[in-house]
Amino acid sequence: MSDHTPDLDALRAANPTHWRRAAAIRTLTLDAVAAANSGHSGMPMGMADVATVLFESHLKFDASRPEWPDRDRFVLSAGHGSMLLYSLLHLTGYPEMTLDQLKNFRQLGAITAGHPEYGHAPGIETTTGPLGQGIATSVGMAIAEEIQRARYGRKIVDHYTWVVAGDGCLMEGVSQEAIALAGHLQLSHLIVLWDNNGITIDGKVSLSDSTDQKQRFKASGWDVIEVDGHDPVAIDAALTQAKKGKKPTMVACETHIAIGSSAQDTSKGHGALTDPTLIADTKRAYGWEYAPFDIPADLKTEWEAIGARGAEERAAWEMRFAELGQGKRGEFERALRGEAHRRLPATIKALKRQIAESQPKMATRKSSETVLEVINPIMAETIGGSADLTGSNNTLTADMGVFSPEDRSGRYIYYGIREHGMAAAMNGMALHGGARPYGGTFFCFTDYARPAMRLSALMGIPVTYVMTHDSIGLGEDGPTHQPVEHLAVCRATPNTNVFRPCDTVETAEAWELALTADSTPSVLSLTRQNLPTLRTEFTNKNLVAQGAYVLADATEGKRLVILMATGSEVEIAMKARDILQAEGIGTRVVSMPCWELFEAQDEKYRKKVLPAGPVRVAVEAGCRMGWDRWLTGERGKRDKGAFVGMDGFGASAPSDVLYEHFGITAEAVAKAAREML
Amino acid sequence: MSDHTPDLDALRAANPTHWRRAAAIRTLTLDAVAAANSGHSGMPMGMADVATVLFESHLKFDASRPEWPDRDRFVLSAGHGSMLLYSLLHLTGYPEMTLDQLKNFRQLGAITAGHPEYGHAPGIETTTGPLGQGIATSVGMAIAEEIQRARYGRKIVDHYTWVVAGDGCLMEGVSQEAIALAGHLQLSHLIVLWDNNGITIDGKVSLSDSTDQKQRFKASGWDVIEVDGHDPVAIDAALTQAKKGKKPTMVACETHIAIGSSAQDTSKGHGALTDPTLIADTKRAYGWEYAPFDIPADLKTEWEAIGARGAEERAAWEMRFAELGQGKRGEFERALRGEAHRRLPATIKALKRQIAESQPKMATRKSSETVLEVINPIMAETIGGSADLTGSNNTLTADMGVFSPEDRSGRYIYYGIREHGMAAAMNGMALHGGARPYGGTFFCFTDYARPAMRLSALMGIPVTYVMTHDSIGLGEDGPTHQPVEHLAVCRATPNTNVFRPCDTVETAEAWELALTADSTPSVLSLTRQNLPTLRTEFTNKNLVAQGAYVLADATEGKRLVILMATGSEVEIAMKARDILQAEGIGTRVVSMPCWELFEAQDEKYRKKVLPAGPVRVAVEAGCRMGWDRWLTGERGKRDKGAFVGMDGFGASAPSDVLYEHFGITAEAVAKAAREML
Repeated sequence: MSDHTPDLDALRAANPTHWRRAAAIRTLTLDAVAAANSGHSGMPMGMADVATVLFESHLKFDASRPEWPDRDRFVLSAGHGSMLLYSLLHLTGYPEMTLDQLKNFRQLGAITAGHPEYGHAPGIETTTGPLGQGIATSVGMAIAEEIQRARYGRKIVDHYTWVVAGDGCLMEGVSQEAIALAGHLQLSHLIVLWDNNGITIDGKVSLSDSTDQKQRFKASGWDVIEVDGHDPVAIDAALTQAKKGKKPTMVACETHIAIGSSAQDTSKGHGALTDPTLIADTKRAYGWEYAPFDIPADLKTEWEAIGARGAEERAAWEMRFAELGQGKRGEFERALRGEAHRRLPATIKALKRQIAESQPKMATRKSSETVLEVINPIMAETIGGSADLTGSNNTLTADMGVFSPEDRSGRYIYYGIREHGMAAAMNGMALHGGARPYGGTFFCFTDYARPAMRLSALMGIPVTYVMTHDSIGLGEDGPTHQPVEHLAVCRATPNTNVFRPCDTVETAEAWELALTADSTPSVLSLTRQNLPTLRTEFTNKNLVAQGAYVLADATEGKRLVILMATGSEVEIAMKARDILQAEGIGTRVVSMPCWELFEAQDEKYRKKVLPAGPVRVAVEAGCRMGWDRWLTGERGKRDKGAFVGMDGFGASAPSDVLYEHFGITAEAVAKAAREML
Repeated sequence: MSDHTPDLDALRAANPTHWRRAAAIRTLTLDAVAAANSGHSGMPMGMADVATVLFESHLKFDASRPEWPDRDRFVLSAGHGSMLLYSLLHLTGYPEMTLDQLKNFRQLGAITAGHPEYGHAPGIETTTGPLGQGIATSVGMAIAEEIQRARYGRKIVDHYTWVVAGDGCLMEGVSQEAIALAGHLQLSHLIVLWDNNGITIDGKVSLSDSTDQKQRFKASGWDVIEVDGHDPVAIDAALTQAKKGKKPTMVACETHIAIGSSAQDTSKGHGALTDPTLIADTKRAYGWEYAPFDIPADLKTEWEAIGARGAEERAAWEMRFAELGQGKRGEFERALRGEAHRRLPATIKALKRQIAESQPKMATRKSSETVLEVINPIMAETIGGSADLTGSNNTLTADMGVFSPEDRSGRYIYYGIREHGMAAAMNGMALHGGARPYGGTFFCFTDYARPAMRLSALMGIPVTYVMTHDSIGLGEDGPTHQPVEHLAVCRATPNTNVFRPCDTVETAEAWELALTADSTPSVLSLTRQNLPTLRTEFTNKNLVAQGAYVLADATEGKRLVILMATGSEVEIAMKARDILQAEGIGTRVVSMPCWELFEAQDEKYRKKVLPAGPVRVAVEAGCRMGWDRWLTGERGKRDKGAFVGMDGFGASAPSDVLYEHFGITAEAVAKAAREML
């Protein structure tokens, strides 16, 4: 925050054209927030000058073609200032961002949600609001840009990612993961505009923070530029300089939150300024004489010219793109559409056939690697990585290459010990387009990545989380590393497919589904420990796509028992079935690798798999939460112990010992079934 | 990591006594990891010199009295190096850490878990392993120490918190939140020993990171000292200097991971070194001639003398403590035992009586503030705070004072936008003892704090999370801020009491339970929007303690319906009951503010509240996950829509509009009941 009080009249006099343009953003913000009686006024008011210069002279875009692949990305990390973005999209002429939408700010059905929501309108490059997510997501966008630039050349891919970040974004830990990764990778096309206004909700930043942000960014390998965020000439020079750097650049913009209002430089100014007198006084201070939501035609024309500024460059790009070889163009477009390679189904099928024959005993994390080894060569858009557990997550395959400042064509990212930054970066890659990211860590550390994983689901983008070491089966590392509630956590999250395959065949099928999903992220929950191949009969059909299916049916007597299991516990269910069948108790085993897909089946199929009648036992080395959905209804047997799993945290010991200790055994499953009969 | 290869013979010759002591740590580590065939050898080997000097000459402790309140805290943030801690505890003579425990490293029932587990043995100050947690937890320990020093004086409270942190800890985002907060608060009694060995699991740190950590810490307001981590004289000087600073200090210790072994300075050295030849060669390089787990008697005696070094100081402290006034002593001891003030029950009762009379309509976040206003004056050990949402979380009460470098007696922390750092710091305060922390953020941002919240549960420490804005009821901020799955997430986590009170009376009861819990963290899920008082009849008894209870019973006709609800939806259930009762359908409403406590009741009580027979409808503005546990068994009605709640993400609109839009209304609940009858 600048110490001096800005002289609005002087600013206006110095750059009248600029001032009026920026005032349009400020007054639209005031009007929309007043109409909604809710929102955040101060940030768009404070950053209007920077944003105006950015859109006017630097951001590469064409409002009439928001999906132009080589556009610059603009990320509003400080998402509460959503009116900054909506104003810009409206003023520059994005067709969907009408004045009515601004008038309906924060109302049901409007594309102008409280925080920018990806998918609501073109020009909203990512969902922001949970602080720090935007800046962390942008790192992935910049990585995707670098990789594609290396692949298609500078004539096809050459754009910047611009981020507006506030103090909140920079205080969130994920921002450190992001800037350290970006600095290490020398992502020179990433530029962060820090809205240095010195104010948070609780009061002055100095209440809670004394960080020298400039020094901090430099320590992470960034270039840093300081600028008066209300001086358009200086801003222009700073942005010009930022684009030239060999490192990512942070531009520290000294601004006044809620500039020109009586709430300027206060935490009140951070929130909704709705007082009519304050609004009138502020508009007067801006020299703004128009009615609410009224943008004079000449000014709108100026802004629309800015919106059309990139049209020529875009057209030239289209020419260059048309000159690309057909193969490259097809690849580019296919990847951009998020379509899997046409050879994927046959490749998966061939692998399944081979596995059904060789029947390997391996951990599903290793199965996953086996699948990736055949996928990565045909899907050039995959970008793999791990949060420093490459050898444990089995995420690196032979042909990928490692992405680094020296090799931009590498498709594998050493994310470091940064699960959260990894997840957010993967979101950014998927949002950028042309990339299909996957990344690994231990399933337990889903916890670290939660905020970004939730955004994958909310945005509906097909990121794949490779989560290995998915139960007490990981053994000696103990309860801090043993997921117990994490399947429930992921399953509770809307629009998330949670796959827990029981063998290599199911793992291959899960991967096929993950790579063909277009609006749902996938979580693969994979074992550390070896598992037998249970799908020993080749099926052309992807059975995991049904969510659950009969793996083995009762072979003698009446079908009295249904055992339900996922992942490593399917083997236990099969052994329990052997025990029960030997006793003449007809037993079906249902493998349930993906609840969400099973839910999505019609009722007829679900009843076919789980008919009324037999008693049911579920076995999973996690908590019970959610299983009652599948266990119950039948004869009210719920209270008779039909779930075999964990009811607390794990422990440190070898895997086999733990399964015995916690009673997750074939004998325990058989006993639970017997007791209900 | 130091560039040059260390000359072990020279090191040994220069400081033979020190060398032998450190070698004991190194060889115990090698032996224990070999016995377990699992674990991490390299870190304890690399940090043995630093740890030896720390324990020998700096750490204030008395191995015979590990609970001495004024001891220094030693936090092994790089928890995978647990053998460093176990070796030190064994060598210095902590009674429980026997040689047999070391021999049973990572085995079931041993206190020597894969990662240090709080509660397993004295001397393990906190659970670590998920990286970054230790360093972030230590910030809370240092805050608690400052506050208690201000209250009881330097003669009673004057100790340091020492942290061993690795590259992984420093890469995790939470470390930035921690160091920025510690730097801002000038926690001069906090000293971080960075094990700068340049190696992570994936390889060299340079694969994934280029951060100038020294500059980064300086940017956050820390003093930084560099030292050769294998030179005991230099280490001693550095630690001496670190204690003198006015800021927190980071000591960058250049070390060689797995020093002296063929795996030195490699990622292999990070893991389990179990090869007998490697072990034999390494021991030879150390000049160590003894059998596995054999510590020569004279060396053990030396180490035990180190363990007894603080006995005199401890005894002197006890004298000083005995001289404290009886009142202060009693307060100190009560708070240390984690016992609530004896006036708490009467205070809560008086408030409940008053509320039952005045029947306010208020948001439960405001109810929570009302409760805190009466609690904080009598419970001096509470330490409140918020992650920059003080006015929204309603966590600050009149008398608390704000903790700052200028005022160490303040009990309120402006955590900044650092939910994760806040949660971890609260863990540290609870672990330190004498403090009962609570802290607020939006319920949705539970996601950011998850890793630390899980540790609260795993460690069994009574931290209270004040999570406001707990549903779509928060309105316009939209889906990024609206929790949907978060109740399920918290409920799925073992040993966590999740309270969702329906009014001010239930909020008061929930707080009473949170403040009297001794081994379970509490999550308070509180509304933004106003709610009526539903508990209009004063009861002496804490009904929330039963987890669920009959709020209103069927008053006419046969009891045909049971409506179950929590929090803001209890009002909806009550209205639905009115509708149904008017139709002659006898309807009971069960308020279920805490599932976990209801589960803990005997079956008789549970069946009394939820008898078989009536159809059941649950209503909660969250996802269904978990509700089948309570909905089912009865007549197999599960599939008939007996849950009214969310089945996806929320939206941006005013609260009332959203409840209508998502169909969470009294009419919808009544309809669901009717349809099943």
